[in-house]
Amino acid sequence: MSGFPEGNAVVYCEGAFGTTNGKTAHGLVRRTRRYRVLSVIDSRHAGSDAGEVLDGRPAGIAVQPDLATAIERAPRETPATHFVVGLAPDGGRLPEAGRAAVEAAIEAGLHVDSGLHDFISEDPRLAQLAARRGVAIRDVRKPPARERLHFFTGKIEQVTALKVALLGTDSAVGKRTTAWLLVEALQRAGRRAELVGTGQTAWLQGVGHGIILDSLVNDFVSGEIEHAVWSCFTETRPEVIVLEGQGSLLNPAYPGGHELIAAGRPDVIVLQHAPARTHYDGFPAYPLHPLPHQIRALELVSEKPVVAVTVNHEQLTPAQARAACETIRRETGLPAVDVLLDGAESLVETLAPLIARPDERR
Amino acid sequence: MSGFPEGNAVVYCEGAFGTTNGKTAHGLVRRTRRYRVLSVIDSRHAGSDAGEVLDGRPAGIAVQPDLATAIERAPRETPATHFVVGLAPDGGRLPEAGRAAVEAAIEAGLHVDSGLHDFISEDPRLAQLAARRGVAIRDVRKPPARERLHFFTGKIEQVTALKVALLGTDSAVGKRTTAWLLVEALQRAGRRAELVGTGQTAWLQGVGHGIILDSLVNDFVSGEIEHAVWSCFTETRPEVIVLEGQGSLLNPAYPGGHELIAAGRPDVIVLQHAPARTHYDGFPAYPLHPLPHQIRALELVSEKPVVAVTVNHEQLTPAQARAACETIRRETGLPAVDVLLDGAESLVETLAPLIARPDERR
Repeated sequence: MSGFPEGNAVVYCEGAFGTTNGKTAHGLVRRTRRYRVLSVIDSRHAGSDAGEVLDGRPAGIAVQPDLATAIERAPRETPATHFVVGLAPDGGRLPEAGRAAVEAAIEAGLHVDSGLHDFISEDPRLAQLAARRGVAIRDVRKPPARERLHFFTGKIEQVTALKVALLGTDSAVGKRTTAWLLVEALQRAGRRAELVGTGQTAWLQGVGHGIILDSLVNDFVSGEIEHAVWSCFTETRPEVIVLEGQGSLLNPAYPGGHELIAAGRPDVIVLQHAPARTHYDGFPAYPLHPLPHQIRALELVSEKPVVAVTVNHEQLTPAQARAACETIRRETGLPAVDVLLDGAESLVETLAPLIARPDERR
Repeated sequence: MSGFPEGNAVVYCEGAFGTTNGKTAHGLVRRTRRYRVLSVIDSRHAGSDAGEVLDGRPAGIAVQPDLATAIERAPRETPATHFVVGLAPDGGRLPEAGRAAVEAAIEAGLHVDSGLHDFISEDPRLAQLAARRGVAIRDVRKPPARERLHFFTGKIEQVTALKVALLGTDSAVGKRTTAWLLVEALQRAGRRAELVGTGQTAWLQGVGHGIILDSLVNDFVSGEIEHAVWSCFTETRPEVIVLEGQGSLLNPAYPGGHELIAAGRPDVIVLQHAPARTHYDGFPAYPLHPLPHQIRALELVSEKPVVAVTVNHEQLTPAQARAACETIRRETGLPAVDVLLDGAESLVETLAPLIARPDERR
């Protein structure tokens, strides 16, 4: 990707950093090629290192109490240039305090990038202000023009790279983070691996190929998934393509994964799971389907195997997370690993034989 | 529904009547409350009765060779007022001849209704012409404004009507027609039954409640399905709601049904199937999954039973269609019926015990 980084970002996550509603900010703290991340705004964690709050490891990114402080404390050589909305609230609407922060950011001359459903660029007052201050507002969830969209054709069958779908048993369960860690581990092992992103956070992180699934008109979803995977393959000729999942197959509100299976036609599935989670994210009336049931459903619908389970350790100590992996191994017969805790190398080992022998795979 | 019929329609289906690309026209010939249908345009069948071509039964709707003839032959008391695009080509784009016909229709002072992906109202020349001639262009697939859309909340659980999902083993397989026949048979049997439509054809037919699934931004699909079913229930208090399916679970290009199951939360599934079809509609490289496999996948994903199979007799004689029903009964243990041939009464009998005893059902 040329032109990266585009600038120096302050990530707005007031009241939500470290919660599922802050997952866009989490993604940016963990990695992005699109920006140099200067700081995260959340008054609840002001003074901490964002990486410490998130993963227990310093990331060199300070949490600031407010925008003014974030701008003031930016290093002289890397002044703040971008205000990135790091909130991902259910429903994607910007809270009132957030709107005021966006206004202040534009006043301060920062570009604004947002993955919310509320399009900031369509707020006449903010749009006018941005024009006056000469800054850009990018609503990354804004659907592309229809004439740039693709229908499914079957050209996905030309893709001979190993296609790995990184799906999950719920939304906001860590699919994207695991997908990046897997791609990076594959690359460290000398494999040509690429991520195809499907959400606004992957875009904000500067993924090479991808779409923003949520924002597509439904009838183009299959074709755009196919086109993204196919473009990634034809342009970069990787040995492995990891496809970022969205939602989860059996989630009542975000029944994702299905179109990724149908149109992305993965060869194998890696399934991200949070053992301590009892209900679908945001829907306490809907108990999470048990892991073995979810594996069975995915394998029946896709006719492809789930080859590993990756574990999200939310609400678990490291010892508990490793014990949960052991339980999953016993119950499912599949490898299970917490990749944030123990790395993605064992996943690479699981996939290696499939990459080496493409003829046997097909 | 008040205000129906809205006018007298000429249905444009040049080159496609009687083929899967003509399915919008087929729906309008079979039933619509929105218009009085005067005629269908398809020069290949000019002079025939549209019902004869379609179902072997006269419908009192003539097939005309072109627009001029269709306008000229309209009864004096019901002059043509609407030009309805009855084509549903793969990809939803209007062929060049179709565009010329639209232009001629506007010139002749007809309103234009279209369910294509190509928005006729966004063609500057046609839009200008329509303004000059004082006629309306309605692109029914145009997505609603975001502020009118709903997210999934779980209010679907308030719906105590029996919810029947009419799904299919493929796209363009007759789900909508069967859904209407089922609703009408239920009503004849004294049941309060309502259809919730999910496509542009059901809208053109004047369905009371519904959405146009294909045209929704993906993230709103679950919430809009829930809201349509919930609105239908709260406004009309039916005993049975039949939910029109889209696509099919395992179709690579149109993996529909999944969000209907997740968010519509049907109690039972009726599955429409064309026994003579070997490949997914429009995709000869993708063989249709066998019926038992599709039933297994639907039941596993939905955790609800498929209670009947309805048969589309394309490429089959009546005797062959009935033999196919018998084979399906034997293979699946489920009732199977060709409702166009033998009516939907047996389906009503299958569902009756579930309607009568709602407490046992939940």
